[in-house]
Amino acid sequence: MKVSRRAQVPPFAVMEIIAAANARKAAGQSVLNLCAGEPATGASDVVRDLAVQLLADGNLGYTESLGAPPMRRAIAEHYRRWYDVEIDPAQVAVTTGSSGAFMLAFLAAFDVGDRVALARPGYPAYKNILRALGCEVVELACGPETRYQPTLAQLEAMDPPPDGLMIASPANPTGTMIRAEELAALAQWCASHGVRLISDEIYHGITYGGPGGVVGATPGRGAGATTAAGYLDQGAVVVNSFSKYWAMTGWRLGWLLLPTDLVAPVDALAGNVSLCPPALAQHAGVAAFSAAGYAAAEANVARYAACRDLLLARLPELGWTRVAPADGAFYLYADISASGMDSITWCARLLDEAGVALTPGTDFDAVDGGSWVRLSFASSVEVVGAAVDRIVAWQRTL
Amino acid sequence: MKVSRRAQVPPFAVMEIIAAANARKAAGQSVLNLCAGEPATGASDVVRDLAVQLLADGNLGYTESLGAPPMRRAIAEHYRRWYDVEIDPAQVAVTTGSSGAFMLAFLAAFDVGDRVALARPGYPAYKNILRALGCEVVELACGPETRYQPTLAQLEAMDPPPDGLMIASPANPTGTMIRAEELAALAQWCASHGVRLISDEIYHGITYGGPGGVVGATPGRGAGATTAAGYLDQGAVVVNSFSKYWAMTGWRLGWLLLPTDLVAPVDALAGNVSLCPPALAQHAGVAAFSAAGYAAAEANVARYAACRDLLLARLPELGWTRVAPADGAFYLYADISASGMDSITWCARLLDEAGVALTPGTDFDAVDGGSWVRLSFASSVEVVGAAVDRIVAWQRTL
Repeated sequence: MKVSRRAQVPPFAVMEIIAAANARKAAGQSVLNLCAGEPATGASDVVRDLAVQLLADGNLGYTESLGAPPMRRAIAEHYRRWYDVEIDPAQVAVTTGSSGAFMLAFLAAFDVGDRVALARPGYPAYKNILRALGCEVVELACGPETRYQPTLAQLEAMDPPPDGLMIASPANPTGTMIRAEELAALAQWCASHGVRLISDEIYHGITYGGPGGVVGATPGRGAGATTAAGYLDQGAVVVNSFSKYWAMTGWRLGWLLLPTDLVAPVDALAGNVSLCPPALAQHAGVAAFSAAGYAAAEANVARYAACRDLLLARLPELGWTRVAPADGAFYLYADISASGMDSITWCARLLDEAGVALTPGTDFDAVDGGSWVRLSFASSVEVVGAAVDRIVAWQRTL
Repeated sequence: MKVSRRAQVPPFAVMEIIAAANARKAAGQSVLNLCAGEPATGASDVVRDLAVQLLADGNLGYTESLGAPPMRRAIAEHYRRWYDVEIDPAQVAVTTGSSGAFMLAFLAAFDVGDRVALARPGYPAYKNILRALGCEVVELACGPETRYQPTLAQLEAMDPPPDGLMIASPANPTGTMIRAEELAALAQWCASHGVRLISDEIYHGITYGGPGGVVGATPGRGAGATTAAGYLDQGAVVVNSFSKYWAMTGWRLGWLLLPTDLVAPVDALAGNVSLCPPALAQHAGVAAFSAAGYAAAEANVARYAACRDLLLARLPELGWTRVAPADGAFYLYADISASGMDSITWCARLLDEAGVALTPGTDFDAVDGGSWVRLSFASSVEVVGAAVDRIVAWQRTL
């Protein structure tokens, strides 16, 4: 029987690595897993405690399609707190993770055949979801000269302009950020060319004093990256999530900030494609915006920062001379082509011979990813340090 | 800026009713809400207790895209227990509610432009999701003569045959079921014509001794409806959910049973469009399959049965002579056209003048739904009885 053409999504190379890592573990061998784009810790105590209370006495039925009103208000408050930007809670849509946010935003903004530009390397789900929805993906090759981010010049060279531009800052896998003035220029160009800008900001809050323009009066790591929330009036869409900064991956909770023209369409689509985001996650998730919730997140970020410092300090030992500047997120994207191996082989051998699991760059860049690997440092200094020891020792054997 | 054509989903008429009902409540007026397709109760204690325990000590990170292995095994076991059908856990995909299941199944089975047949009246999200994905929906007008279910004759009359057939048994809004021999004939016809059969079985377990063929050796209400799980080998797909029988609506948990050709495509799609279903719901949800979990569900079903008995006994008073036979689910779909009003007006006036909220049939049937209303009896005998009192009294005033 027929299987759809759009179901022919290229498998992730990392799945083979994960399967091999699990097999190693099952055989009693040591594995240091630096594949996952996932904090090693879970939700903060304050979120868990509220969830326990709600399980006893809360209504865990369907919420409104766009999310429970207290959560929508809490998200709007977060923008005032971190960025000094006023957001109407009516323009906040709570979603089933950023995954649910992408699906709704893409469906609402783009039709079959529409062209959407995005950076290569980048998070592979953007293009895989867009293609599944019948959109055409235009990859913009982005290298170190633009901090792996798309530029105005690349957009201006597109004739006709695309229907949409997908950006991410901090980005996965490179961790690089878009400066405030660059974001302003991109948003302005998109607005004046009828191009829907979608800004993935799921790594906001996980930044390390890089070049992202400081926005807003309130200090805090959230202020390290620039948000597109100020450009909703020009048609921009913001995607965010509780998965990274608040370490709530399995809770499947995220949000959209929507321009007014997309609120009703997203509401109607959400009622059909998802009914509502998980209720317990929504009701308990408001505690993430408490002082204790932020404090727990900041403790995690401090750990990622220590891991990053360790990695950067040991780059000479690793011999990795070409790495993306990890301004934010918890990834080091490194060129390993000097090994003479492609990244899939390199990662498979590293796991097999040294018990360290990294992600081949081919998952993020089908053209040049054979030269790159992604190391996730969202675990602990001990694990990252031990992994570096093993990689350094293994590279000497090559 | 452009909003997609596919975002032009027709709004549900019930949303106006719900908004008006909420306004009434906020003004301190009484409302009996029989709109929602949602059990009045929540998850069983055994599921909540396990969730509390997991919040203290469980890993609530991402699971596998197709779901946590213990949940996949528990679902397979359920088919052995209820239907005496052997399901390989590898063919089970845990999903973010049946909503997530529909999205994945439709994406995996159908391309842009594919034609999918389904019954009218029916659950509106089927056609709204399919159209958002660029598929063409072919509505089959189904009336009392076929228990509001599509027939082989209707399919044989389609030239060329459709690419897919979406069925639901028990169905929303009619509650009617497809008999075992009819399902066998539909599945056989689909298999021999390359038509992907997708069977929505989210109301299984909520049946009232109707004409659905008894399948399997184990007694229990689950045996009241026929599953398409026995037709996976012929390419059929089964959709189910924890929302209705187990009353876990806000937990957003459902599943797919997949033919082998769709397992890898659904896995790849799920990794991109949803990452994984909610982790806590998956880990705690296995308790739904315990003796206590089934017992709690059966207590709810007994309450729905009492509500249904009350409604059927009072039909003469209501004067509703044309109602769909509610073999299962918790809906009464009734023709109110003798009132001389269309159903949207009828429902608006019933709410305004008598404080009872029902759903206009137009949400389920854009052609004939103006003659019908849907009453959800998933609450209590007291509420349903009081609602009937009000409707009877209000109808006398017309």
